[in-house]
Amino acid sequence: MSSNWGNKVKFSLFGESHGAAIGGVIDGLPPGIELDIDFIKKEMDRRKPGADPYSTKRKEDDSFEILSGFFNGYTTGTPLAFIIRNQDNRSKDYSKLKDIMRPGHADHTGSIRYKGFNDYRGGGHFSGRITAPLVFYGAVAKQMLYDNYDIRILSRIKRISDVEDRELDHINADADDLSGVLSNKKIPVLDADKGRKMEEAIENAKNCLDSVGGIIECMAFNVPAGHGMPFFESLESKIAHLVFSVPATKGLEFGKGFEISKMKGSKANDSFYYDEDNRIKARSNNNGGILGGITNGLPVVFSTAIKPTASISTEQNTIDIKNKQNAKLAVTGRHDPCIVPRALPVIESCMSIALLELLLV
Amino acid sequence: MSSNWGNKVKFSLFGESHGAAIGGVIDGLPPGIELDIDFIKKEMDRRKPGADPYSTKRKEDDSFEILSGFFNGYTTGTPLAFIIRNQDNRSKDYSKLKDIMRPGHADHTGSIRYKGFNDYRGGGHFSGRITAPLVFYGAVAKQMLYDNYDIRILSRIKRISDVEDRELDHINADADDLSGVLSNKKIPVLDADKGRKMEEAIENAKNCLDSVGGIIECMAFNVPAGHGMPFFESLESKIAHLVFSVPATKGLEFGKGFEISKMKGSKANDSFYYDEDNRIKARSNNNGGILGGITNGLPVVFSTAIKPTASISTEQNTIDIKNKQNAKLAVTGRHDPCIVPRALPVIESCMSIALLELLLV
Amino acid sequence: MSSNWGNKVKFSLFGESHGAAIGGVIDGLPPGIELDIDFIKKEMDRRKPGADPYSTKRKEDDSFEILSGFFNGYTTGTPLAFIIRNQDNRSKDYSKLKDIMRPGHADHTGSIRYKGFNDYRGGGHFSGRITAPLVFYGAVAKQMLYDNYDIRILSRIKRISDVEDRELDHINADADDLSGVLSNKKIPVLDADKGRKMEEAIENAKNCLDSVGGIIECMAFNVPAGHGMPFFESLESKIAHLVFSVPATKGLEFGKGFEISKMKGSKANDSFYYDEDNRIKARSNNNGGILGGITNGLPVVFSTAIKPTASISTEQNTIDIKNKQNAKLAVTGRHDPCIVPRALPVIESCMSIALLELLLV
Amino acid sequence: MSSNWGNKVKFSLFGESHGAAIGGVIDGLPPGIELDIDFIKKEMDRRKPGADPYSTKRKEDDSFEILSGFFNGYTTGTPLAFIIRNQDNRSKDYSKLKDIMRPGHADHTGSIRYKGFNDYRGGGHFSGRITAPLVFYGAVAKQMLYDNYDIRILSRIKRISDVEDRELDHINADADDLSGVLSNKKIPVLDADKGRKMEEAIENAKNCLDSVGGIIECMAFNVPAGHGMPFFESLESKIAHLVFSVPATKGLEFGKGFEISKMKGSKANDSFYYDEDNRIKARSNNNGGILGGITNGLPVVFSTAIKPTASISTEQNTIDIKNKQNAKLAVTGRHDPCIVPRALPVIESCMSIALLELLLV
Repeated sequence: MSSNWGNKVKFSLFGESHGAAIGGVIDGLPPGIELDIDFIKKEMDRRKPGADPYSTKRKEDDSFEILSGFFNGYTTGTPLAFIIRNQDNRSKDYSKLKDIMRPGHADHTGSIRYKGFNDYRGGGHFSGRITAPLVFYGAVAKQMLYDNYDIRILSRIKRISDVEDRELDHINADADDLSGVLSNKKIPVLDADKGRKMEEAIENAKNCLDSVGGIIECMAFNVPAGHGMPFFESLESKIAHLVFSVPATKGLEFGKGFEISKMKGSKANDSFYYDEDNRIKARSNNNGGILGGITNGLPVVFSTAIKPTASISTEQNTIDIKNKQNAKLAVTGRHDPCIVPRALPVIESCMSIALLELLLV
Repeated sequence: MSSNWGNKVKFSLFGESHGAAIGGVIDGLPPGIELDIDFIKKEMDRRKPGADPYSTKRKEDDSFEILSGFFNGYTTGTPLAFIIRNQDNRSKDYSKLKDIMRPGHADHTGSIRYKGFNDYRGGGHFSGRITAPLVFYGAVAKQMLYDNYDIRILSRIKRISDVEDRELDHINADADDLSGVLSNKKIPVLDADKGRKMEEAIENAKNCLDSVGGIIECMAFNVPAGHGMPFFESLESKIAHLVFSVPATKGLEFGKGFEISKMKGSKANDSFYYDEDNRIKARSNNNGGILGGITNGLPVVFSTAIKPTASISTEQNTIDIKNKQNAKLAVTGRHDPCIVPRALPVIESCMSIALLELLLV
Repeated sequence: MSSNWGNKVKFSLFGESHGAAIGGVIDGLPPGIELDIDFIKKEMDRRKPGADPYSTKRKEDDSFEILSGFFNGYTTGTPLAFIIRNQDNRSKDYSKLKDIMRPGHADHTGSIRYKGFNDYRGGGHFSGRITAPLVFYGAVAKQMLYDNYDIRILSRIKRISDVEDRELDHINADADDLSGVLSNKKIPVLDADKGRKMEEAIENAKNCLDSVGGIIECMAFNVPAGHGMPFFESLESKIAHLVFSVPATKGLEFGKGFEISKMKGSKANDSFYYDEDNRIKARSNNNGGILGGITNGLPVVFSTAIKPTASISTEQNTIDIKNKQNAKLAVTGRHDPCIVPRALPVIESCMSIALLELLLV
Repeated sequence: MSSNWGNKVKFSLFGESHGAAIGGVIDGLPPGIELDIDFIKKEMDRRKPGADPYSTKRKEDDSFEILSGFFNGYTTGTPLAFIIRNQDNRSKDYSKLKDIMRPGHADHTGSIRYKGFNDYRGGGHFSGRITAPLVFYGAVAKQMLYDNYDIRILSRIKRISDVEDRELDHINADADDLSGVLSNKKIPVLDADKGRKMEEAIENAKNCLDSVGGIIECMAFNVPAGHGMPFFESLESKIAHLVFSVPATKGLEFGKGFEISKMKGSKANDSFYYDEDNRIKARSNNNGGILGGITNGLPVVFSTAIKPTASISTEQNTIDIKNKQNAKLAVTGRHDPCIVPRALPVIESCMSIALLELLLV
């Protein structure tokens, strides 16, 4: 029961990092959608290893195969199943890890949970690779949101380690300009200088055989007002459910999030007014576009904290559960000093999938 | 579809703030549980208006009536339905608000969403009052977790406005001592001095006809390791889904949360070791007791940001949607300058309900 | 997990026959529906004891109270909760039955299932009374189907004991004429003579302190073609799931059902043709209006077998589970010699609820 | 939303008959189950074309590939995904059928439902072939039920056309003897003579380019008492939901089913008694092992009516929806004169999957 999500569109996800294949089943897409296969490929390329110079050297071309629900270029309305074969399985890298627990990883917990039968290779079902199917579905969702509502979903890196990008005024930002600045960048930020400092931080970590984390900010523009439901099916709940399903996320805030809790109510409230064209405008967007679980027409904005990669080559103290004694571990193999750049399309997918659930008729 | 949650135990929730009654249906509780009705009452009393000197003057005794699933002091194993009658409905306070949108509230979005048919009185289904049924179920869950696993769930106020309580070392804390310090307090904190400053901040806000928000930290001790599932049914996902269903929450972080994103991997990882009694211990709990969606035996810890109460008596700028023009609004009626103290049992319920889903066999 | 149904509209049901109240929560109704409360009352009156001269003498007025989701005559779009108080609880009738198992009842199985904690009074959660909330929701569904699609749902008694009504040509029947013949009848049949024989059979059973069962045929006219989905969400699956949730149903067939299995394919197939007005017509409706799980525009027709009432006053052989020995039992109290007439609105509700799930946008 | 089933174990199913592959995802199997792959293969062989001399000449070896959730011979506890490649796709057989509607098929309804985008080849998602993944999961369920509870699931053909097998006394039958009589038979019946007559009926139909249907009876022995829940999650509801998901089923009855509706209550009730060894025995099993939705320890028995194959080579009258005129159709290609023998493992899978949902802890 760990891999089912959604109500109107049920998304089923499967696969271990070093098993035969990973994939998903999307059940509930309307018939007749002309899927942009190239767009899906591009989105998945953003996520895969090797997409940026800092990531792991593991080679996968992440090419997917659609098995059903798609015919002559259009969705058929029946369940759409797709798989991604695992090609580069250097299983030998992981054989020694069956009994030595890697700190920060789910090895120990997974061992207990699956009573020793879990696929321990490369993280098994816990691997970040399992986010690939999420990006596939997220890309489909993005296309549908754009084609039907003109909704634009963008993201940027707000912070790497202790280097922070500047603030962004979302309600006065232009989605196209923003897209021009952020798209196709190794490190998508607003302040190029901060961008360079972020690259240095990642490089340093790499040289020290260590890792760094960061914060991703995701935004959706042109989201129509009045969608969502209060309480259990609020938009924040849906987004949160997805974001915290992604490995390595440890925090999430909407709008001003934790900052709001310092403000006075008079300052925190986003007040509306009618402008000269009698259109409803807002003076602020502290609530990140969502009130009472329902969209209010302002950009939906959230930030999520990504912890530093747990797999590092630096020697660490840990335990040997087989012999029940303390041990040291230096993990070899291929590891990212920072997964934040690769996580961007994954986090955007959380936004697009949640919005699709909300807006699909 | 907004009021159903859970898989093993399905929880159905209903009610508008000023309708006849609010309530819930808990379907899936095993038979034979001797419910501690007094405990449920006490937990609900912590939430209701009037529980602390700062809250709204609305009088409700929140007494509940169990309609089914409970017989001779024991659960029957069939769906347990309960209701809480709404007694103090000063509907006249709200009649003028049908067309004037209250800033920070879901009035406008709700009007669009429900096409004018929403129950606008007092926030309708969006009201904080709808959390009462959640506390009922949360209390049942707490009892079951304690009786079966010895799990202790506690919470404290980490911050009100800009006043912060001191840090807490969770892995070396004693649940009983902590309970002694935090229970039955108006403002449960570790540092009594900070507690007094928090009271002053709330008092100030009240006098200024304004409001303040804060941060709640919730902890669960004695949680057995190895429970949970990766991805969509991770413990973080479940907790997050519940926390963001609660009105006024705008942020959530597990363990060190957003702080982790600043750390190096070597520092962030919680390393384990065997102590003299050959029991597994940890040097830190930056991950808040959860790794890869699965409990690791350390205390489960999360913090959530609560925004300042949206309803304030200070005059605010807003819009009149009927006449499509700008307007001013001074909300009268009964309003909390700070809902954080009353939100504590609600947030604890998010923890207990999520853990119950995880641990119920 | 026994009392949740539906996807677009989630229906939650609760209550024991002799508990405080029974009721339900309907979550997902669109806002703005002007519910016909009188119609709901009339439908529920058809089901309740005393509705016909043959049924049990238990007096209930089945009046319901709507607790939420309904305001000023319209649905609000939020969960609609309603309860029906249990008034006539002659609990003493049932106290001796705690250990003596009534043949044909769920006493023994329920005792095992609920480990002795089940509410044994009057059948507890197994009681036919639990169908009252189903009829409430079924009435709402009927109204929505009629208002939006002109769909007419009717039913008749095809058989009581060994007395059978004549055949009906559904595709050439007129819904209005049929309604005229069947509505407001004690025993709704086409052949009045057979109707009288059925009354006699029921009277005989009553005098012998025995009971009889029968077959109900349910029809839906004007169902638009092309709705439904193959496999798990086929219309037959939905109807079947609901029909077999109703106590006492033991068989279900669509169209010619078991008869079809005797036919040759050339005879069984419903062939279509264009008539003079170029409208699609059919030569037969052996498939009961559903092909491949999808409606084909012909009347949806199914029949369900209702077993004879299990509670009879005739002495029966059974077992005493407390003393582990054989025993005899003569059940006193109030029992129906035949529940088929009262089951008609319940079965119609299975049809309307399933169709609503299918057609709701 | 057509291809998801289950609560404790979620089963997701996908695929079109002539698409790249069909398959499924089973999410919720406990870890550590040593799957009997040979048994799964044998079960699937019973279903595939060519399994018996009467069926279609389409050649498929139905070999499956497990993509995840299975490692070193054991389930890992994570979602188990499997696919079956479609090899023999004589698509040209079906190209002329895009506009001519085949009587008895879902062509017309499917065309409306999927707005022209459905995969019309060979029945697309409606094809009987989509039952192959169901048999895979059914085989896994059978193994788990047998290994954990000693439950034996058998089936036989009760009728083909108008030829009926003799009655069976289920409560006095020996599962092993029965298995010996029924297993590995072309036409599994109790009376060999009737079996021969059934073969003749199928042969006749084949020669006439027509088809016949029949009735399958399915039985489960050693089912422990006290499992299931009343109402929406009753065992009958679960079985019915699955059975009516299978293409071509048009009727279902439990125990004596439609016959029960003719009986008096005194005869219909299954009375229990203590035998000499003080074990609970029953005098009859008219209820088919289920009372109030809960198992009572007697064999679970149901029968389902399978309609004659809709695809027949005899010329039929139908409509041409493109030109809106009447037309004649003689379907060429490969067609079964009777699918009943191949449907046996499919119907058994409905039994095993429903029981697994019930019994899985």
